[in-house]
Amino acid sequence: MIGRLNHVAIAVPDLEAARAQYRDALGAEVGPQQDEPDHGVTVVFIELPNTKIELLHPLGEDSPIRGFLDKNPSGGIHHVCYEVEDILAARDRLTGQGARVLGDGRPKTGAHGKPVLFLHPKDFNGCLIELEEV
Amino acid sequence: MIGRLNHVAIAVPDLEAARAQYRDALGAEVGPQQDEPDHGVTVVFIELPNTKIELLHPLGEDSPIRGFLDKNPSGGIHHVCYEVEDILAARDRLTGQGARVLGDGRPKTGAHGKPVLFLHPKDFNGCLIELEEV
Repeated sequence: MIGRLNHVAIAVPDLEAARAQYRDALGAEVGPQQDEPDHGVTVVFIELPNTKIELLHPLGEDSPIRGFLDKNPSGGIHHVCYEVEDILAARDRLTGQGARVLGDGRPKTGAHGKPVLFLHPKDFNGCLIELEEV
Repeated sequence: MIGRLNHVAIAVPDLEAARAQYRDALGAEVGPQQDEPDHGVTVVFIELPNTKIELLHPLGEDSPIRGFLDKNPSGGIHHVCYEVEDILAARDRLTGQGARVLGDGRPKTGAHGKPVLFLHPKDFNGCLIELEEV
């Protein structure tokens, strides 16, 4: 069911410093900062040859990653995103096996303009999983 | 400098349950359990179309991930592994810019039989980074 790893998201306390580190020290191809007000984050995508790294920083007071950075002030790996062909079929298959979807269970539009859902980390080895329909 | 994302490693409290979940619920292609006594872990590789997920479980009393699971009993995302062409050149470039390498700074042989190093998470946004020479 799951396909490609679309991205790994890393929450960072200083987005411009992290962006410069990936560009200059790690020598990767980095994109510009993009505000995603619907998701409460500012993001930078790092383009690797086979997938992307998404650097995340809180945007606004209600940012869903503010609590994560309060607990992990240096930052940390926040989630992985797997691609699926049909997000509603994927959701129904997983919830039918007892897994929980975060929020109201309905897909939202993600940073790439595609439908996304997040699965409850307690049901997946403490790992927050985003599913993105492609 | 960094190339492909070789894998994302997820530490799990029950390796066979996690393996079955990736195979049956998430519908991914999963490999067998492999003991890696030199690294103090038992691993299962999940083959995605563009990269791998490495499920990690402690092997032996001195396992480097035992402390992580003590702190995160449900499990969690443990590290990301980036490929590099020349691991000594990569190390020298990064340490020359002040980043720290874990252990004695010399590459070890990783789970794929290739030289690997780990970078200090405090120097990389709380994210443990493995470099693997390919």
